[in-house]
Amino acid sequence: MKFIHTSDWHLGRQLHGESLIEQQRLALSQISQLAVEHQVDALIIAGDIYDRAIPPASAVTLLSDFLDEIIAEHHIPVVLTAGNHDSADRLGFAAKQMTGSGLHIMGNLTAELTPIRLQGKTADAWFYPISYAEPSVVRHLLEDDSISSHEQAMAALLEQASNHDSQGLAKVVIAHCFLDGSSESESERPLSIGGADRISPELFAPFDYAALGHLHGPQYRGEAHVRYSGSPLKYSFSEANQRKSITLVELQPQQPANITLLPITAARDVRIIQGSLQQLLDDAKDDPHAEDYLMVRLSDTHALLDPMGKLRSRYPNVLHLERTGLMAQQADREIGRERIKKGELEMFSDFFAQVAGAPLTDAQQQHLHGLLDELHQGEDA
Amino acid sequence: MKFIHTSDWHLGRQLHGESLIEQQRLALSQISQLAVEHQVDALIIAGDIYDRAIPPASAVTLLSDFLDEIIAEHHIPVVLTAGNHDSADRLGFAAKQMTGSGLHIMGNLTAELTPIRLQGKTADAWFYPISYAEPSVVRHLLEDDSISSHEQAMAALLEQASNHDSQGLAKVVIAHCFLDGSSESESERPLSIGGADRISPELFAPFDYAALGHLHGPQYRGEAHVRYSGSPLKYSFSEANQRKSITLVELQPQQPANITLLPITAARDVRIIQGSLQQLLDDAKDDPHAEDYLMVRLSDTHALLDPMGKLRSRYPNVLHLERTGLMAQQADREIGRERIKKGELEMFSDFFAQVAGAPLTDAQQQHLHGLLDELHQGEDA
Repeated sequence: MKFIHTSDWHLGRQLHGESLIEQQRLALSQISQLAVEHQVDALIIAGDIYDRAIPPASAVTLLSDFLDEIIAEHHIPVVLTAGNHDSADRLGFAAKQMTGSGLHIMGNLTAELTPIRLQGKTADAWFYPISYAEPSVVRHLLEDDSISSHEQAMAALLEQASNHDSQGLAKVVIAHCFLDGSSESESERPLSIGGADRISPELFAPFDYAALGHLHGPQYRGEAHVRYSGSPLKYSFSEANQRKSITLVELQPQQPANITLLPITAARDVRIIQGSLQQLLDDAKDDPHAEDYLMVRLSDTHALLDPMGKLRSRYPNVLHLERTGLMAQQADREIGRERIKKGELEMFSDFFAQVAGAPLTDAQQQHLHGLLDELHQGEDA
Repeated sequence: MKFIHTSDWHLGRQLHGESLIEQQRLALSQISQLAVEHQVDALIIAGDIYDRAIPPASAVTLLSDFLDEIIAEHHIPVVLTAGNHDSADRLGFAAKQMTGSGLHIMGNLTAELTPIRLQGKTADAWFYPISYAEPSVVRHLLEDDSISSHEQAMAALLEQASNHDSQGLAKVVIAHCFLDGSSESESERPLSIGGADRISPELFAPFDYAALGHLHGPQYRGEAHVRYSGSPLKYSFSEANQRKSITLVELQPQQPANITLLPITAARDVRIIQGSLQQLLDDAKDDPHAEDYLMVRLSDTHALLDPMGKLRSRYPNVLHLERTGLMAQQADREIGRERIKKGELEMFSDFFAQVAGAPLTDAQQQHLHGLLDELHQGEDA
């Protein structure tokens, strides 16, 4: 059994107000190509398919087109579950009418798990899809008042998967949850406040593979087969240094899962660049990726005229600007009349130099000094 | 081939702010029972499945549960199309993955119709589902600049159905449109302004049956087999006198379609009642349907204290109140100081009688008269 594990597509998501739908289309196209190239037996998407309960129609169409391609054209079965960002009700619409085609959508949790047996070229395997499991929902579904934590809820659901007779075939759990000790990114929405969402990785260790979703950085906890695939794209600047991928999993009887990360290359990367404004503007000429989504950290310590406008003329997708140089300087700055006065003089000098293209002459500087003194005398009066 | 034709379910709709989801659940349950009882070969829903592009999750779940029952349990195939209220993008999600199960959802229009052959116990038939067809969309899809009206758009699409070789089997068109000369209800959203949406019924006459949606009253135009099923529930008080139904259609080779209307009985009817407040309150005691959704027309010509509150104590679902008595009286009323003064006196007398439970005494009346005179003298000053 060979399958691709991915998660957290967040279709319809925006990055600092910019639609990512075209980037998502390109990423999905790579996933489709990789699935075909590696001749996988299945594709698993472990929750957060959409970015929100009511995704834009363009995201619905994008997913629908992708599923047509992968299922109707390439005959690769797909299992997908609802994450905490999805509306399980909406995602689960008419799911029963799809299973025959090889599309297995797990919307709302049910009291009994629905094990799915998928055909592998070498051997079949059982998949246990578990949508995002809110403890109160699991407590109600299983009529078990002792369930109050995320860990207890997941343990109760996994017990069903453990007890299911797979007749010697491999068992793969699909879940959307937070494993204790994992690394977070800024683009994840916490499942609960104060760490109550933490689940022990050991719960998943007995299975042949745990295909997890929720965290956006690829990682495993405890054992290598208890694993987050991470999102296929960077959804915040906190992920700038992550290497995005989907996970290729091969299961052989009585052997540990064989795991390979297949990189996904974004058409536009999400990067952080830093330096002085002039230096960055100069660098842009030789930057083949000037259209990436950028956070810019400017080291300049003086005032700048419309730095965003200037940057965007070279880097069209600057999404966020930080004046780190100015911030560092401000932290040092004493507050005092003389200091402020000097500040004004410097600021105006910088401004003048940028607008006029030449620094203030000595005479102009003296005149400005006098003017500032006059103004401040007026204040004292 | 025996099938049920219905349309305009408008799942998720409200009536004067009241959710109708429970009424809709009961209506769908009747439709399911009738489909089983009449052993139909198919169920056709001709658009406006939902009331709006983004229906509430409860409406999505209701439809999903219904489809599970009718398809997975009773093995009756379903064909449904998008109406002008539906989002064709959203409704059409993963439609290709459903057809194998017997669920045929037609979301967005495509340049080529998708004829569907359904098995009948006596003979098969071809169905040509056409989602709501905006002329500009059809013009673009068919790359035919001569298409500018609803009639031209429908004619172009129907031409495909005409040309399709059904190998002698019956042809059923499913469309969502406005036939010239049809009767409208207040709960329909016009397809265009000023009558440009009108289509000649003759376009549909050559087919064995035209299963139409859009209009909420059951009716046919031209020939009996060119037909609107109407909505299964009353969605406005303008439909109070309509008899709601679904349409049972039997097609036999070389014979006109055999058509039977199967009534759908709402748990709560939508009715208009009229009379004086006291009379209606008295009637309520013997009204087994006092929980119906009501528009009340009060014939009383005098002021009434909280008539809505009083009515709702007996008829809990009064949704709208009209003071027809007062309106008729007001139409007659001359405007003049004396008249208005008399009006105030009368109004206060009515008010007093209702609050105190007894009319004003003579002394009280005289006092009130004096008081009103004093007030109006103040105005003249």
